[in-house]
Amino acid sequence: MWIAIELTRDPILRPQTWPVPFDPETGALVEFFGIVRETEGNDKIAGLQYEAYATMAEKVMREKIELLGKQHPCQAIRVVHRLGAVRKGENAIYVGIQSQHRREGFLFLQDFMDELKKDVPIWKQLP
Amino acid sequence: MWIAIELTRDPILRPQTWPVPFDPETGALVEFFGIVRETEGNDKIAGLQYEAYATMAEKVMREKIELLGKQHPCQAIRVVHRLGAVRKGENAIYVGIQSQHRREGFLFLQDFMDELKKDVPIWKQLP
Repeated sequence: MWIAIELTRDPILRPQTWPVPFDPETGALVEFFGIVRETEGNDKIAGLQYEAYATMAEKVMREKIELLGKQHPCQAIRVVHRLGAVRKGENAIYVGIQSQHRREGFLFLQDFMDELKKDVPIWKQLP
Repeated sequence: MWIAIELTRDPILRPQTWPVPFDPETGALVEFFGIVRETEGNDKIAGLQYEAYATMAEKVMREKIELLGKQHPCQAIRVVHRLGAVRKGENAIYVGIQSQHRREGFLFLQDFMDELKKDVPIWKQLP
């Protein structure tokens, strides 16, 4: 499984191409953008601030991805998480998954997002 | 819920923008590309041919989307299905969903794809 993980302080734009060629047996590309909403709890916000223990966050994400790949075999996964100030309406995270069939791509992506919220050292706070 | 359904004989490219502005409460954009694989059953193929009873396909898709929107409320859905000859490696379908939280977007998308395969009059065949 091809894995790319990136933490960035730059805006996350829609990726135009994948940095890895598609496998001829890839039948599904599932992509997720997590966007900062205007409402956080009961408050209207202008944005959020994300900070990370970066080397550990990348390490834990990679471990989780490798483990999930055993349950839901996929061909490639790309994660981009933004750090620093992220305004409402901007992307905080992008996850893209290439898989043979759509089923395992959906499952992988959902499980990965659940895991990410659990114990990856990336924190969001009001700025 | 904003709904757009398109059947097209042109290649499906990655959409650069959405034709509808994002709701400030949209926290998730989930996108799916269904890609023609090199192997269909046990055969290596150059591509597939998709044909539809177009007006009926659009009508049935819209009905299914409206029904699914009651189960998994989402803000916007966009479906583009390709017709005619689609070569291996090319997208046969794109589905994008905007939702408040990721959960309902994932569920909507998975259920929609399952429903699409069941009784929408779009057929694939070897060319």
